[in-house]
Amino acid sequence: MVIVQQTSIGTWVCGQFCTRIAPISDNCDDAAEREQGNRFLPRFDSAGLLTAIAQDSASGEVLMVAFMDRAALDATRTTGRAHFHSRSRGRLWMKGETSGHVLHVESILVDCDQDALVLKVRPAGPACHTGERTCFYRELAGDGLTRVEG
Amino acid sequence: MVIVQQTSIGTWVCGQFCTRIAPISDNCDDAAEREQGNRFLPRFDSAGLLTAIAQDSASGEVLMVAFMDRAALDATRTTGRAHFHSRSRGRLWMKGETSGHVLHVESILVDCDQDALVLKVRPAGPACHTGERTCFYRELAGDGLTRVEG
Repeated sequence: MVIVQQTSIGTWVCGQFCTRIAPISDNCDDAAEREQGNRFLPRFDSAGLLTAIAQDSASGEVLMVAFMDRAALDATRTTGRAHFHSRSRGRLWMKGETSGHVLHVESILVDCDQDALVLKVRPAGPACHTGERTCFYRELAGDGLTRVEG
Repeated sequence: MVIVQQTSIGTWVCGQFCTRIAPISDNCDDAAEREQGNRFLPRFDSAGLLTAIAQDSASGEVLMVAFMDRAALDATRTTGRAHFHSRSRGRLWMKGETSGHVLHVESILVDCDQDALVLKVRPAGPACHTGERTCFYRELAGDGLTRVEG
């Protein structure tokens, strides 16, 4: 059941959890609830997206970063496998849907204003489509890039 | 000196490094150069931003994630302190400019398609404006949030 509710701080659509669909204009109470409360109130940006970082739960290595819309977040939570929204293809995708290199999500950390997530994951293979273990396989060195060994 | 060059894959402005200012429509050569080459060709999105993750270089903990425009990237590289672009305030800001809790950048990792960075940082204090060590101080547990101990 979806409930639409209008309040002084915006219009909300409430299903499993609530999302404000009006333009963001936080007041103090709202910000405090998001930052200090125990309610999950994911804040999607004007394009309907939040940032999701996949971090190897064993090594701590950052593997990749991508964006989630509501559908990707729901699919990730339901299946335990990382799903994202592709901005270039304009669709939901499961990481590893063709390669088999899925990311098993062990836990999800939420940041202060709830517009970014860290997925602690156990990767089933290389996380990068290039075959590298992580997408972050190069380091800025002067004005160029060098490969990170490891 | 800024050189503007038009090629089959877009219009480029080349100063210290090159940026394509035409709409993104990668061809294979371009993607291969970005992914496998040693040139730093940061790819800003349609809003002129890329994603920057600050990770504690000692603990591996993800501290915060924010966005950089060209000015923030340049300022970070020049000063060695993390700068970002505030989408809400529409301006450049240095992390810690009021609190003093700057992030000293020790190295910068670049992802496969060069639209995201990991800043390996040494934080001068709590990274989160709430006073927490990291912005990711809560974990999704069922439909609610619990505080992460550590």
